[in-house]
Amino acid sequence: MIDLNSVKATLKRQQIETPSWAYGNSGTRFKVFPQPGVARDPFEKIEDAATVHRFTGVAPSVALHIPWDKTDDYSRLAKHASELGIKIGAINPNVFQDVDYRLGSVCNPDPKIRRKAIDHLLECVDIAHETDSFALSLWFADGTNYPGQDSIRARQERLGEALSTTYSHMGNDLTMLIEYKLYEPSFYTMDLPDWGTSLIHCMALGEQAKVLVDTGHHALATNIEFLVSSLIRVQRLGGFHFNSRFYGDDDLMVGSADPYQLFRIMFEIVDADAVTPEGGVAFMLDQCHNIEPKVQAEIRSVMNVQEATAKALLVDRAELAKAQLAGEVLEANAIFQEAFNTDVRGILAEVREEMGLDRDPIAAYKASGYQKKIEESRIGGTQAGWGA
Amino acid sequence: MIDLNSVKATLKRQQIETPSWAYGNSGTRFKVFPQPGVARDPFEKIEDAATVHRFTGVAPSVALHIPWDKTDDYSRLAKHASELGIKIGAINPNVFQDVDYRLGSVCNPDPKIRRKAIDHLLECVDIAHETDSFALSLWFADGTNYPGQDSIRARQERLGEALSTTYSHMGNDLTMLIEYKLYEPSFYTMDLPDWGTSLIHCMALGEQAKVLVDTGHHALATNIEFLVSSLIRVQRLGGFHFNSRFYGDDDLMVGSADPYQLFRIMFEIVDADAVTPEGGVAFMLDQCHNIEPKVQAEIRSVMNVQEATAKALLVDRAELAKAQLAGEVLEANAIFQEAFNTDVRGILAEVREEMGLDRDPIAAYKASGYQKKIEESRIGGTQAGWGA
Amino acid sequence: MIDLNSVKATLKRQQIETPSWAYGNSGTRFKVFPQPGVARDPFEKIEDAATVHRFTGVAPSVALHIPWDKTDDYSRLAKHASELGIKIGAINPNVFQDVDYRLGSVCNPDPKIRRKAIDHLLECVDIAHETDSFALSLWFADGTNYPGQDSIRARQERLGEALSTTYSHMGNDLTMLIEYKLYEPSFYTMDLPDWGTSLIHCMALGEQAKVLVDTGHHALATNIEFLVSSLIRVQRLGGFHFNSRFYGDDDLMVGSADPYQLFRIMFEIVDADAVTPEGGVAFMLDQCHNIEPKVQAEIRSVMNVQEATAKALLVDRAELAKAQLAGEVLEANAIFQEAFNTDVRGILAEVREEMGLDRDPIAAYKASGYQKKIEESRIGGTQAGWGA
Amino acid sequence: MIDLNSVKATLKRQQIETPSWAYGNSGTRFKVFPQPGVARDPFEKIEDAATVHRFTGVAPSVALHIPWDKTDDYSRLAKHASELGIKIGAINPNVFQDVDYRLGSVCNPDPKIRRKAIDHLLECVDIAHETDSFALSLWFADGTNYPGQDSIRARQERLGEALSTTYSHMGNDLTMLIEYKLYEPSFYTMDLPDWGTSLIHCMALGEQAKVLVDTGHHALATNIEFLVSSLIRVQRLGGFHFNSRFYGDDDLMVGSADPYQLFRIMFEIVDADAVTPEGGVAFMLDQCHNIEPKVQAEIRSVMNVQEATAKALLVDRAELAKAQLAGEVLEANAIFQEAFNTDVRGILAEVREEMGLDRDPIAAYKASGYQKKIEESRIGGTQAGWGA
Repeated sequence: MIDLNSVKATLKRQQIETPSWAYGNSGTRFKVFPQPGVARDPFEKIEDAATVHRFTGVAPSVALHIPWDKTDDYSRLAKHASELGIKIGAINPNVFQDVDYRLGSVCNPDPKIRRKAIDHLLECVDIAHETDSFALSLWFADGTNYPGQDSIRARQERLGEALSTTYSHMGNDLTMLIEYKLYEPSFYTMDLPDWGTSLIHCMALGEQAKVLVDTGHHALATNIEFLVSSLIRVQRLGGFHFNSRFYGDDDLMVGSADPYQLFRIMFEIVDADAVTPEGGVAFMLDQCHNIEPKVQAEIRSVMNVQEATAKALLVDRAELAKAQLAGEVLEANAIFQEAFNTDVRGILAEVREEMGLDRDPIAAYKASGYQKKIEESRIGGTQAGWGA
Repeated sequence: MIDLNSVKATLKRQQIETPSWAYGNSGTRFKVFPQPGVARDPFEKIEDAATVHRFTGVAPSVALHIPWDKTDDYSRLAKHASELGIKIGAINPNVFQDVDYRLGSVCNPDPKIRRKAIDHLLECVDIAHETDSFALSLWFADGTNYPGQDSIRARQERLGEALSTTYSHMGNDLTMLIEYKLYEPSFYTMDLPDWGTSLIHCMALGEQAKVLVDTGHHALATNIEFLVSSLIRVQRLGGFHFNSRFYGDDDLMVGSADPYQLFRIMFEIVDADAVTPEGGVAFMLDQCHNIEPKVQAEIRSVMNVQEATAKALLVDRAELAKAQLAGEVLEANAIFQEAFNTDVRGILAEVREEMGLDRDPIAAYKASGYQKKIEESRIGGTQAGWGA
Repeated sequence: MIDLNSVKATLKRQQIETPSWAYGNSGTRFKVFPQPGVARDPFEKIEDAATVHRFTGVAPSVALHIPWDKTDDYSRLAKHASELGIKIGAINPNVFQDVDYRLGSVCNPDPKIRRKAIDHLLECVDIAHETDSFALSLWFADGTNYPGQDSIRARQERLGEALSTTYSHMGNDLTMLIEYKLYEPSFYTMDLPDWGTSLIHCMALGEQAKVLVDTGHHALATNIEFLVSSLIRVQRLGGFHFNSRFYGDDDLMVGSADPYQLFRIMFEIVDADAVTPEGGVAFMLDQCHNIEPKVQAEIRSVMNVQEATAKALLVDRAELAKAQLAGEVLEANAIFQEAFNTDVRGILAEVREEMGLDRDPIAAYKASGYQKKIEESRIGGTQAGWGA
Repeated sequence: MIDLNSVKATLKRQQIETPSWAYGNSGTRFKVFPQPGVARDPFEKIEDAATVHRFTGVAPSVALHIPWDKTDDYSRLAKHASELGIKIGAINPNVFQDVDYRLGSVCNPDPKIRRKAIDHLLECVDIAHETDSFALSLWFADGTNYPGQDSIRARQERLGEALSTTYSHMGNDLTMLIEYKLYEPSFYTMDLPDWGTSLIHCMALGEQAKVLVDTGHHALATNIEFLVSSLIRVQRLGGFHFNSRFYGDDDLMVGSADPYQLFRIMFEIVDADAVTPEGGVAFMLDQCHNIEPKVQAEIRSVMNVQEATAKALLVDRAELAKAQLAGEVLEANAIFQEAFNTDVRGILAEVREEMGLDRDPIAAYKASGYQKKIEESRIGGTQAGWGA
């Protein structure tokens, strides 16, 4: 039997981080469509993130992306966040947008460029310390476009060296999250294409290095909940970059393409008792709102994660284990799927009410006038985007 | 028995069109890396295209992209091309980079925006006439990112109307090429996702409407030579946008990812006697040289198409048919694969020599100093790119 | 506003056909695991099908597969079905399990084997007439395993001829359903790999030829609801073979892999007012219960289709259209997805109660003792399977 | 500069193992087409394997599959092989064809069935010792078909235990090869779906446990040469099961679908100096000749591996490294691809001649009358197949 109060207590303590770059303009290689009211600097992005937290109650931190969020005084940025009720989350270095990085950053054949990239990683470690962040979150665009272009193995060695140098600089308080991605922007090899490669590097580094799973970064037909379970088993799941995809790295709102998959992933998290912060798994959004309003889309995404989590918490694990051990395929599947079929919107409305929030964050956000306010006030200047 | 002279004669008459946009900067949503010497306007792009033709002898036309190649006087542009020994090829409208097109162009729910997009298509028909082009080549970024965002069926109706209006404007000399693409930049539906959808529209329009196959626009595991064969069978293959992909629409140099696939595609063309211009199939490159020098990459790509064609021409079709009809699986496959295993670089060197060209276009290009010249002379101004 | 009574009325009139072969043993190339109580002949299979109908009320017909269901007297078989409260559904010829068909049936290079295959198709037309079936349902395993093995185009011509001969034999009462499949059991080309190829053949034949969509027969990342919508638009959607897949043609229970996709497909059906029999779309299950009990799995599958249909009927189409036309991406998506999030199990329980059925078909089936009865009585003889 | 004599010397010393099961009938779940002359017992399979070696000179061992190759006296089998000039290769247990294994073998929820499976693994270790085999080659069909059917994590624990028990039994002379597969015959989870999972288990076991890469067992778009390179880097590449695929686990002849991919894989092997036996990488074929003659298909497959290897050996690695370090993308790619474009059939004919073999193994095999002999003599009895 499921204890609804316990489910609700867990839901109240889940934390979902939003990324500063979700509040800037984004797009595809074909076009970036600017949107009215989009943030123009990291301070405004933090205001947007705080707004998402204000309406959902479970998004108390914001990830930064350097140099997109470059500023003179990171402690001031952290203070700004704190005053708005949130904190700085993972620090994400960017070593893919400088002209020097055409053939890679830490894996570049040119040692001078590798050095430059490593220096930026070290700088980001410092920023992480300054902002009291919990993690350095690493994603590399490095790779090659053509067979033979560079040595696969040599690039792995260079990658290992850069990670090791950075890891040594971290101290004991930070986690290094190592993300992987099958392809894009490199189209023949990515130097970290899959969780196995990330894991190899994590194990070479030490216990503070963990794998970051971006739900849109896999080959089609990859069973993500399986690898999540495997990473938990070897204590190397660092967290998620949540988003949805139908095809490639589409970066749609989490839960919008295959909500049953998100539920299955969250079930593995529930099954490992890792929904709440003590579980050590970071839940982070990483999406591109190319055509839809950004703050509202982030609110909706947070709610989608919550719904999947609530459903996963509703699986009767005792009954499930019984059916599984008895080899009753249909019964076990039914117990599992029926939790998914449950309408949890009511439960979540209660959770919010009990947290002192509006039952319907979207309606409340719309009623708040926030969108209108930013559209009217954020005039002039340059909107933030992937390139700025 | 294969008649080598006949093979060479066919190779001399094959024509491969290069696109103006290949000579501008391109990249991914993560970064466009500018390259030295890149063309700054359509006139310089045409010079680059003419250079590719000068060294290969089989690239006598250049496709335009409007408004990237917008100019006051298209007949002057055509004359410029003609003076350089090439002509204007397919005209490609662009209805995806205006801010109005956030939710689509000809399929947009807003009739005013649809009208604007159709007007641009009609303008491009006029440009095609003015430049003596053979084809209007249509690709639409239209689609949706989220289930429910728009009516799939309503969008098809809107698309049909726009195509019909444009087709009516074409006169008898133009071919309408209708391209399709599985995804990107739209990530839930594309309004023309596959060849079947393109074919439905072509059949509704009339005989001058044909399907354009971009080799990078399919679901993984799609057998491209099969659909090429099917389109030929119903007389609806208009041509190709050639490029290579390992993952998504990677737009790598044609022949660089799976040369055996390119050979199999060219075999269907050979088998339908459609290698030369009378065959009515347009061979066009459509690639992004994100990290490699552009002119040289186009030369290489033209050569890759030639190699695949030469190998396809070397298949002993009489022997093959015999083995096929006898049900001799291994023999038929061996005849086929052994043509692919043949080293045709010598044959092509002879073809070039007989055409009065250098046997090695890449070496000749390097020796010509063209790259150095454009790097030194194309200083100042704005480099052309996807957005300009 | 959704009228719940109207939704329930529609649900009561939906019909979902189960296939005789679901009640026989099935498996993979690695192993067929026999199950206790499995039917031994077409008469027992029909009893199982009737049982599924008895508990669900919406499965009033059973598809046959010839020669798996070969019998001396098909009218007797039809009478048997009728006495059990169901009727014979689509007739499925089998031209893939005779040793002659190693290199294909209707596309075989050997004309004698093609003739043999066509004769079987004609025989099945006769059986369809004898059993008062509505459709001849065609799936061909034909294809090739190796490039060059046979002429892609010649095989299309042979296919066209066989279909034409069979179509001519059908009379006016039958529909010809033409299924397609990307791969398996042929691994280089399938002669009908995709809906486009099926459509070409349907259009060459006439209005009684329609495309059959098996939900497990597509390339990964294919948007099935899109092609369903396109086929409806050109009036060529004949029906479905429903099943689920995570990878290849997994033939799992429909709705068990991606219930949101099934919902989206059913939405297109709802949107075209084609849920009930007058819509002319046949809903048929085609699954393999390799490891789970078969009758219960079919019941569950019927219920899964009902749930997806109920959710699709709950989409507020007026509100949706309003949001779509206004270009409100998040609102339109929310209206759509929230219908999916609704728990429809209660509505369906009411539907069943109003139809005089048990609210919970699975519980009722378990309580009925049917499974125990067949396990005890179907002793001796040979269990039916794919090969018998 | 490439030293052709050194290339040839390496090619003479490469060893490619053929599997006993290639000489039995195989097929798909739809049909197994029997072929004339197919072996009826392990002794005849070994004769076929020895024939492949006789004509190629580089296939000196044959893998066994237990219980398909069960016999009373394995030392007699080994002696039979030895008399025919070959030896016993990897021992492959089969824990997927007993009715007990419906829900898995070593991962089954039932401890009695797990014990039975482990006992079979231990028996196979003994057979490996008796036949002087070098490796226990493990592939498990274990997995689940439906979400919730069993605990992903519990199954990993059970798998770990079984592997550990077996590893302990191996002694110091055997290698444990742990294969993975994305899907089939399980369609929701496989308990070893990817190289990362295999690697986790290998590392938990010890240095004698290595990953076995079957080239047909990956998600589409997986870069196989990349993971091969990574496994070499961490000294965990045990070997290959070579075959080709266009779609799923098609098990076509190696090199028949994408010969350039095979070349790229072999390049990583060459680059790690692991072509010859001292390299510790086992090259094994694992294919299904469903429609083509088996012995000839194996000969062709061995030749295909040799051609890919020869081309890989022809890459001028010094020149390549120079271009790579200089960041010359087109030059590096050209050096790489031009080695692939080389026609190596002449080199291999010389290699064979120098080894005292016929220059053309296929022609020699056909001329030998072996196929006719086995077709005439292997009459009566039961042909071997996957199930026997």
